Amino acid sequence: MTAPLKAVEGSVDLPALMLQLGRQARSAARVLAIAPTAQKNLALAAMERAIRVNAAAILAANAEDVAEVKASGASSAFIDRLTLTPARIAAMADGIKVIHDIADPVGAVTERWQRPNGMTIERVRVPLGVIGVIFESRPNVTADAGVLGLKSGNAVMLRGGSDSFRSCRAIHDCLVQGLREADLPEAAITLVPVRDRAAVGLMLSGLNGNVDVIVPRGGKSLVARVEAEARVPVFAHLEGVNHVYVDRGADLAMAKAIVLNAKMRRPGVCGAAETLLVDRAAAEADLAPLLSVLIESGCEVRGDAEMQRVDTRVKPVAEEDWSTEYGEPIIAAKVVDGLDGALLHIARYGSHHTEAIVTQDEAAAARFLNEVDAAIVLHNASTQFADGGEFGFGAEIGIATGKFHARGPVGAEQLTSFKYRVHGTGQTRP
Amino acid sequence: MTAPLKAVEGSVDLPALMLQLGRQARSAARVLAIAPTAQKNLALAAMERAIRVNAAAILAANAEDVAEVKASGASSAFIDRLTLTPARIAAMADGIKVIHDIADPVGAVTERWQRPNGMTIERVRVPLGVIGVIFESRPNVTADAGVLGLKSGNAVMLRGGSDSFRSCRAIHDCLVQGLREADLPEAAITLVPVRDRAAVGLMLSGLNGNVDVIVPRGGKSLVARVEAEARVPVFAHLEGVNHVYVDRGADLAMAKAIVLNAKMRRPGVCGAAETLLVDRAAAEADLAPLLSVLIESGCEVRGDAEMQRVDTRVKPVAEEDWSTEYGEPIIAAKVVDGLDGALLHIARYGSHHTEAIVTQDEAAAARFLNEVDAAIVLHNASTQFADGGEFGFGAEIGIATGKFHARGPVGAEQLTSFKYRVHGTGQTRP
Repeated sequence: MTAPLKAVEGSVDLPALMLQLGRQARSAARVLAIAPTAQKNLALAAMERAIRVNAAAILAANAEDVAEVKASGASSAFIDRLTLTPARIAAMADGIKVIHDIADPVGAVTERWQRPNGMTIERVRVPLGVIGVIFESRPNVTADAGVLGLKSGNAVMLRGGSDSFRSCRAIHDCLVQGLREADLPEAAITLVPVRDRAAVGLMLSGLNGNVDVIVPRGGKSLVARVEAEARVPVFAHLEGVNHVYVDRGADLAMAKAIVLNAKMRRPGVCGAAETLLVDRAAAEADLAPLLSVLIESGCEVRGDAEMQRVDTRVKPVAEEDWSTEYGEPIIAAKVVDGLDGALLHIARYGSHHTEAIVTQDEAAAARFLNEVDAAIVLHNASTQFADGGEFGFGAEIGIATGKFHARGPVGAEQLTSFKYRVHGTGQTRP
Repeated sequence: MTAPLKAVEGSVDLPALMLQLGRQARSAARVLAIAPTAQKNLALAAMERAIRVNAAAILAANAEDVAEVKASGASSAFIDRLTLTPARIAAMADGIKVIHDIADPVGAVTERWQRPNGMTIERVRVPLGVIGVIFESRPNVTADAGVLGLKSGNAVMLRGGSDSFRSCRAIHDCLVQGLREADLPEAAITLVPVRDRAAVGLMLSGLNGNVDVIVPRGGKSLVARVEAEARVPVFAHLEGVNHVYVDRGADLAMAKAIVLNAKMRRPGVCGAAETLLVDRAAAEADLAPLLSVLIESGCEVRGDAEMQRVDTRVKPVAEEDWSTEYGEPIIAAKVVDGLDGALLHIARYGSHHTEAIVTQDEAAAARFLNEVDAAIVLHNASTQFADGGEFGFGAEIGIATGKFHARGPVGAEQLTSFKYRVHGTGQTRP
C-alpha cells in the first residue's frame, strides 16, 4: 500500500492540473488499448486482493468521511449511501472478481465478410479511450467504474463526491496497486485529487480532447448539469418513468406478482415501475386485486375518480404524476383502452427506459415489444430486471436512455467502439 | 407529379416553421419505425420510377440553378458539382434500386441469449428517429440520403445548398410521390423549403428534441460549423489524413500499384492517401520507384532533403504538410524507422479515418491493424476502398471518424440503434 495521496487544494492551477491528468489518461489509454487480456486480468486479480487486504484502511478512511458528513447534518439516506461496511467492501471485491471473469470485449471480431474482389473485411471491437465518471456519494463507484473501464481497455478519470473523498482515495490506492503489479500505467485509473467542484466543469469540457465520454452516476440534478454542460458525448439516463401494462389477456396471478415486484422490490431503482396501466376489458376482474396487492404491501396508489370508486384507498392523481419518477412506494394507475391506449400513453409519458406488458396473448405482446420505443421492453417479466447484472453483462457502469451507441445497461461491451480491418492481397480500386 | 412547392421566403416566422417541420418529421418517424419492409420497398420502387419518368423536369430545374450560379461567377468545380446530366439522374435512380435491394436492418435480431431464470433477451435493431442532413451543392444527396433514411426506418430532414434549391425540390417531388404511392407520410422525407441560412442553425439546435442526429455533407467549413454548433449528435468526418506505409516486407510491384491508386485514382475523395511512409530498411530499393510512379502520373511529391536527394523532382515539405488533407494530386513522403516509426507518425498526425500497410510480413501487418486507431485499417489494399459501396453496404450517408455509434462508412445499418426485447414467463426479481 502506498502512502495516501494528499488532496490537492488551494493555490493549485486547476485547469493546468486537470489538463495534465487528461493527457496522462490519454497516454495510458493508448497502452491499455493494446494490453493483452492476461495483463488486464492480472491487474484485476491484484486489485481484488488489495481491496480485501486493505479493508480496515478503507473502513477507517470512510469513518472520517462519515463523521464529517454527520457533523454537517446530512440526511440518513445520504449517510447510508456514503457508509461502507465489511460486507460492502467484500461485495466490491466480489464485483472485481466478476469483471475479471467476464470475456474481454476488446479484439472480438463481431462481423466478417468477403468482397467480390477477394478482400476480407472484419469488424473488431476497440476501446473508446478515456471515460470520465462523475459520481456522488457512493464510494464503491470508484472500484466498479475503474475496473469495468480497465477490462474494456479504457482509461478512466473518476471524480467522486467531495463528501466521499477519503473513502474513494483509499479504494483508489488499491486499484493503483493492482495496476502497478501488472505493470500497467497508473494513469489508467485516475482519481481527480481535488474537491473543488470546478474540476467537474473542466472534465465536461473534454480537457482538450482528452476525455471521450462522460458517465454521470447520481441524482437528477447531477445528470441534468452534465447533459447541459458536456461538450463530449454522455452516457446517461435522465429518468425511468416505467410502465407495467396489464392486458386483457393477462394471467391475474402473474400480473399481481409482476406489478408488485416491479414497484415494490426496490422502489428507488431506475427500473422500478411508476405507472400501472390496466386494459379496460380486464379492469372489472383485475383492477381491484391489483390495487389491493399494491396498497396492502404499503404502496400509495394514485388514480382518477373511477379508480377511487374501485378502491377507496386510492389517492387523487394529477397530470404531473404521469411523468413523475417517484423513486418511492407510490404508483400512478390508469385504465386504458386496450393495447392501443397503452401504447399511446407510453408514447406520451414514457422516458424510453423500461416498459413491460403482462399478457398471454402473443400477438398483443409482439405488438407491444415492437412498437414501444424504449431501451428495454419486457413481456411477462418485471421491470426490475433492467440491470446489467441481470442481463448477464457481469456489471454495468449505468443504464443509458439515449439511442446513440450505448442503450440500456452499459457493460464492458458497450464501453467499446469498433474498427474495420481489411485484409487484401494487393487490391486497388477500379 | 404535384405542382412544385414554392420556396417559403421573406416574412415567414422561420423558428415556428422549422419547429412545425420537426414535429411533422417526428410524427412520420413513429410511422416509419414500424412500417413493414414491403411498404418501404414499394415507396422506393415508386421513387425510382418517378426519378426516371421526371428526368426532364429535374434537368430543367437544374438548368435554372446552374444558370443562376454561372451568372454569379462560381468556380467551374462548383458548377460541376451542381450540374445534373441524364447519366447522373440515371445513376441516382440506380442508387435507389440498390437501396431497395439491400436487407432491411430494422427488426433484425443481432443477439439472443437466455438467462438462468428462463428469460430470453434479444437485441433488435430499431431506427434512430429523425435524421437531419445538411449538404452543399450536390443535388443528388436529396435522393441518396432520403432513401437511405427511409430504408432504415428514419424520417429525414434535408437542407440543401441554396444554390441547388430548384434541383433538390424537383428530386424531392419524386420522393414524395413515392411516399404517397406507398401510403407513407409525406413528412418522412422533408426538404426544408427555405433558402435562408438560419434554417441550418435551427436544425442544429435539434428543433425541441425533434432532430436526433445531424449528418453534414460538404466541405470542411460546413462540417466544422456543424460540429461546433450542434446540440445533437453529429455523424461527421472532419478530415481524412490517410497514410500508406510501405514496410520492409512489401512486394514492390504491389506497393507501387497500391500507392498510386491510393493517391491518384481520385485525389479528392476522403479515402485518398495524403502521406506515403516508407520503411528505412526498404528505402534504398523501393523509394526511388515509388516516387517515380507518383511523379510520372502527375502527382506532386513533397519531402525532406533526404527525399529530394533520391529524386530531384521532390518539392520541399513543411511541418503542416503532415497534417494536411490536400484533396489534390499532392502527397507528402517520409522515411520512417520501421513499423514503430510508422505507428508513431500515424498516432501523431493521422485523423483516425483510413490507414494502410503494404507488407508480406504477416506479423507486421497484424501489429499495424491492431495498433493503429482508425475507422478503417487495411493490409495490402488501397485506402480508396473507404466507401460504403465498396464495403458492401449498398450505399452510405457519409463516413464517420468519431468513435461513437457510427464509425467508418455509415450505411443503413449504422442509421439504426437497438433495443432489448425480454421474453418472460412471469419472472420477478428476487
